Amino acid sequence: MPQQIFSYQQLFDFSKIIFQKIGCSEADAELATKVLLSADLRGVDSHGVARLGGYVRLWEVKRVNTTAAIKIIHETPSTAVVDGDSGLGLVIAPFAMQVAIDKAKNVGTGWVAVQNSNHFGIAGYHAMMALEHDMIGIAFTNASPLVAPTFSVERLLGTNPICVVIPAGKEPPFVADLATTTAANGKLEILQRKGGLAPLGWVQTKEGNSSTDPHELKAGGALLPLGGDREHGSHKGYALGAIVDIFSAVLSGANYGPWVPPFPAYLPMPDEQPGKGIGHFFGAMRIDAFRPADDFKLHMDKWIKRFRRAKTVASEERVLIPGDPEREMETERMKNGIPLLKPVIEDLKFLGGKFGVVF
Amino acid sequence: MPQQIFSYQQLFDFSKIIFQKIGCSEADAELATKVLLSADLRGVDSHGVARLGGYVRLWEVKRVNTTAAIKIIHETPSTAVVDGDSGLGLVIAPFAMQVAIDKAKNVGTGWVAVQNSNHFGIAGYHAMMALEHDMIGIAFTNASPLVAPTFSVERLLGTNPICVVIPAGKEPPFVADLATTTAANGKLEILQRKGGLAPLGWVQTKEGNSSTDPHELKAGGALLPLGGDREHGSHKGYALGAIVDIFSAVLSGANYGPWVPPFPAYLPMPDEQPGKGIGHFFGAMRIDAFRPADDFKLHMDKWIKRFRRAKTVASEERVLIPGDPEREMETERMKNGIPLLKPVIEDLKFLGGKFGVVF
Repeated sequence: MPQQIFSYQQLFDFSKIIFQKIGCSEADAELATKVLLSADLRGVDSHGVARLGGYVRLWEVKRVNTTAAIKIIHETPSTAVVDGDSGLGLVIAPFAMQVAIDKAKNVGTGWVAVQNSNHFGIAGYHAMMALEHDMIGIAFTNASPLVAPTFSVERLLGTNPICVVIPAGKEPPFVADLATTTAANGKLEILQRKGGLAPLGWVQTKEGNSSTDPHELKAGGALLPLGGDREHGSHKGYALGAIVDIFSAVLSGANYGPWVPPFPAYLPMPDEQPGKGIGHFFGAMRIDAFRPADDFKLHMDKWIKRFRRAKTVASEERVLIPGDPEREMETERMKNGIPLLKPVIEDLKFLGGKFGVVF
Repeated sequence: MPQQIFSYQQLFDFSKIIFQKIGCSEADAELATKVLLSADLRGVDSHGVARLGGYVRLWEVKRVNTTAAIKIIHETPSTAVVDGDSGLGLVIAPFAMQVAIDKAKNVGTGWVAVQNSNHFGIAGYHAMMALEHDMIGIAFTNASPLVAPTFSVERLLGTNPICVVIPAGKEPPFVADLATTTAANGKLEILQRKGGLAPLGWVQTKEGNSSTDPHELKAGGALLPLGGDREHGSHKGYALGAIVDIFSAVLSGANYGPWVPPFPAYLPMPDEQPGKGIGHFFGAMRIDAFRPADDFKLHMDKWIKRFRRAKTVASEERVLIPGDPEREMETERMKNGIPLLKPVIEDLKFLGGKFGVVF
């Protein structure tokens, strides 16, 4: 697939101007860009600058408010609910995560549910804000329904990621950021572009049979929960996706299940809306609310080193710690640039043309 | 497989006396029995009265202290660390969960990490303590290593369950209680007894190849993380099991990874112990720390009803809500009794003989 390399700075400058053109303050435009590009750097291409046009189109149909008044609408010493005022999730999420961190400073932990938001980029960015405070960071979000619960032919859940970030000492932090499906939708999109087949257990047909066709979703099929089928524990992936949905949306007052608004602006809104926008959930736990941070970090280093040096199966050289591949990618791409596929480049050029900005 | 039915009360009376015979106070013996038998009632036979002899044997080798002084050794307004003093996990866990609930009453949420404990029975019992307080309940525990991380041939994690319990209104609560493996060890034990084959993706050989032989663990093989293999997301199951291990043990000061003590008393202790005993982690979140409990419950009922009435694949009659099968089993067994297999009955008779109690 033809691609071209762009420097981080190039993409940063372009993306920031576009966010300003659609009404963001300079600070918000910088923050939204930083969150967006953290996905490209970390190799989660589906959630990066490739989505910039998508956010713009949501603004065009008045489903994103770029001058949102984000505010806390309810709180206790360790919790808050944030109303995102239909703003960019890319800006709302760091606000909410900061509230969680501030509460953790005061009472040990902070937990923030968010309503009335939009797509927040990658969960990892937000959860990782906790690291510099010696805190564990947690981020969930729900998303529009692509996933069929075990035994269902209907799509009732999003790919609803769970992200948990844990600081270490000399070792890099533990960063788990996982869709609660067998495979993330981005992986399926890659197969769709390449014309490849999906492994069984990733998708089902509209009748609920497992399929290798990566185009099944367009034909009324669904992504499958982590586990793939009942015999391999798909009811567990379904339960995890459901927990993310309920924490993000039922707790906050956002839309949940089949009623979560879609990201593509051309898709109609669900005919019923039991809440506001999409929902997120964030957590921050101060390490020293449990034990001295230095002790904890020594043991995390020991944990990480032991797992890293585990004896491997013959075909593999090492056991990875969650976050290893993304961190290595980030170093590589910050140095050598970010490759973009031709359709993404064309969409960015089109966007630039619309706003009189050269890409 | 031959089995015999016993009433809840019969098993309760016997188990309570045995716990008293090994030194528990009457209150602790009743509590431990209640926790243990909740597994039998809910159909998790591997974690119920079948393990009574196992606890006794741990006490015989002085690895369980039945007069433990369980205490809080560190706390903040929303967190605590509990030292279980090598007591019965069946008694330590409800103590720690109660601390989490009390903290949630004060500051919205409570989070308690536990060190120096033993096997705590089923996670569901403890997390469900939150329900009567209109709280979400969470329970994790680590366990001795049976699971190989993705690409590892070494067993470095336990089956490390995640339990999340969410109250509803007129609908029964949402109760997810899942081992972070493709299949729980109990399911493998059933196949071992029956002589059946395991589906591929449950276990691997000592070389790390997927196998259908349920006896692989005895030959140096391992259980597989939820997902089964890398292509089907086993790195996600591995990450989830790792999170449970770190929250339960690195945060609390218990043993983690390959150093978690085994449940069977005849197995040697790990040659190194970076912490004390096994670890648990509990959480309680007051619903009205986020939104009025009645609002939340209305929406949970709507969520549950929508998922329950989802259109199903042709072979199935209904989409289940996490907790449905266990709740139905509990009603049935409380009424009609609990079936025990012959080897379990024989072990209980042997135990009775040892302490002069008729079973």
